[in-house]
Amino acid sequence: MEFFTAIQDIGVYVKNAKRNCKTIGLVPTMGSLHEGHLSLVRAAADECDVVIVSVFVNKKQFSAGEDFDKYPRDIKRDREILESANVDVLFAPTNAEMYPDSLATYVEVDAKLANCLCGATRPGHFRGVTTVVAKLFNICQPDMSYFGQKDAQQAVIIKRMACDLNFSTGISVMPIIRDNDGLAMSSRNSYLSENERIQALSLYKALCAVKKMVEQGEVCSSRIFRKIKQILISEKDIKIDYIAIVDNESLQPVETIKEKTLIAVAIFVGNTRLIDNVVVDGES
Amino acid sequence: MEFFTAIQDIGVYVKNAKRNCKTIGLVPTMGSLHEGHLSLVRAAADECDVVIVSVFVNKKQFSAGEDFDKYPRDIKRDREILESANVDVLFAPTNAEMYPDSLATYVEVDAKLANCLCGATRPGHFRGVTTVVAKLFNICQPDMSYFGQKDAQQAVIIKRMACDLNFSTGISVMPIIRDNDGLAMSSRNSYLSENERIQALSLYKALCAVKKMVEQGEVCSSRIFRKIKQILISEKDIKIDYIAIVDNESLQPVETIKEKTLIAVAIFVGNTRLIDNVVVDGES
Repeated sequence: MEFFTAIQDIGVYVKNAKRNCKTIGLVPTMGSLHEGHLSLVRAAADECDVVIVSVFVNKKQFSAGEDFDKYPRDIKRDREILESANVDVLFAPTNAEMYPDSLATYVEVDAKLANCLCGATRPGHFRGVTTVVAKLFNICQPDMSYFGQKDAQQAVIIKRMACDLNFSTGISVMPIIRDNDGLAMSSRNSYLSENERIQALSLYKALCAVKKMVEQGEVCSSRIFRKIKQILISEKDIKIDYIAIVDNESLQPVETIKEKTLIAVAIFVGNTRLIDNVVVDGES
Repeated sequence: MEFFTAIQDIGVYVKNAKRNCKTIGLVPTMGSLHEGHLSLVRAAADECDVVIVSVFVNKKQFSAGEDFDKYPRDIKRDREILESANVDVLFAPTNAEMYPDSLATYVEVDAKLANCLCGATRPGHFRGVTTVVAKLFNICQPDMSYFGQKDAQQAVIIKRMACDLNFSTGISVMPIIRDNDGLAMSSRNSYLSENERIQALSLYKALCAVKKMVEQGEVCSSRIFRKIKQILISEKDIKIDYIAIVDNESLQPVETIKEKTLIAVAIFVGNTRLIDNVVVDGES
């Protein structure tokens, strides 16, 4: 596996791969890799000649007071995992490489998409995401890029950006990967105490419950909202950030569950912020 | 010459050119072509295998109340000119093609670069410029892109954006092309009456005068400012928009003329807004 930290070096690699007509699959990550990331790597390997995984804890997508400093980092372990997964390139740039002091350009999507859901309490988060992803697209020139459905709003926004700015990469959004107990995999799960983790499971329980309600014919968003809230507030250490029932493209609230309605929830369990979601179809 | 209006169609052409290892030179224009544009075309032809010229009057870079509706358009004439210049591809997309209603993504540079000089009186102008140029870069995937020094601030901002977002295109900024009388070529010169055009020449006269002052050792910005102002206000139909004496990278004002100092001026002659500039070196 090639290991690059300099943009110029991976640029030479990418140019060469392109010249040899290789297709490139990109998996952008913040490291601390888990099975969720590896499902993206496998999808990339299935569809592309060359798999590039980037590991970059993107300071610009952390708001003030968030966990940038304590975000789990273990590039040695990540490197071993990616070696074992037969990844072709690990790109792990430094902050200075990605964000020199002179940097003055940002890629932004409209507030309607970026300031709701997670964006409401994480100012600048999605500007940080779209800017770094645009940079990675230009650096790695992928034919396909892979993102996880766990970050549902991110997936919507990146698809919007790639389309709007005419990036030539396809965007593939892969299903949420869960631990055996149902908790959606996340690097932030490592912050949870044993007791917090047990309480956190109610997030998945709540989503399963409302998915079943919709399958049984429930289309009223406010009843679904109340059901989720009722399950979550039964846990003493859970604080609800948001429960959103929105169109899965516009991210605008829907009163009635329609085709492709995103039910997304963010909670704090103690100090740890967790998100999860399900996309349901009220018209099936 | 190929003529494309659809992004998908030029995409196929570009992909094919890349597969055949052709280098691509892009000249983005708003049409109404003149010798200034053709100097960019010639530079592109000298350096690249394939020359793409885009003609798109970019609504998003016009502020409210500006001349979007009356901006000169003559695609038939532009097409003939580009045929004669042996251009390979003319890309002339529609508004709907470039800006579908769903568009929600913008590329923006910091206010420090975008809200001074022309940006001070043209809110949103540079956001429109960077967004459309980012789109054109992704659509045409140029190895080199060509811009005119006449739009000095635009050149600075596009170089910044290309660097910050890691676009793989090189940016070439070509010298201002002038009519025999010295007036910098611009599609907007067609708005001028005979009498206005004569008065407009004082813009070039003022820049020549201060260039000479710097060559003779003058390094005081305020004396240069006053000299320009004095020449311009002697014309009855000229209204000064701005006289800026700034660093040619940061666009921040300099009190003392340094290496690469940009002296940029915008005026109204009657209702027509004209810009011109010179880059001087106070340290030579």
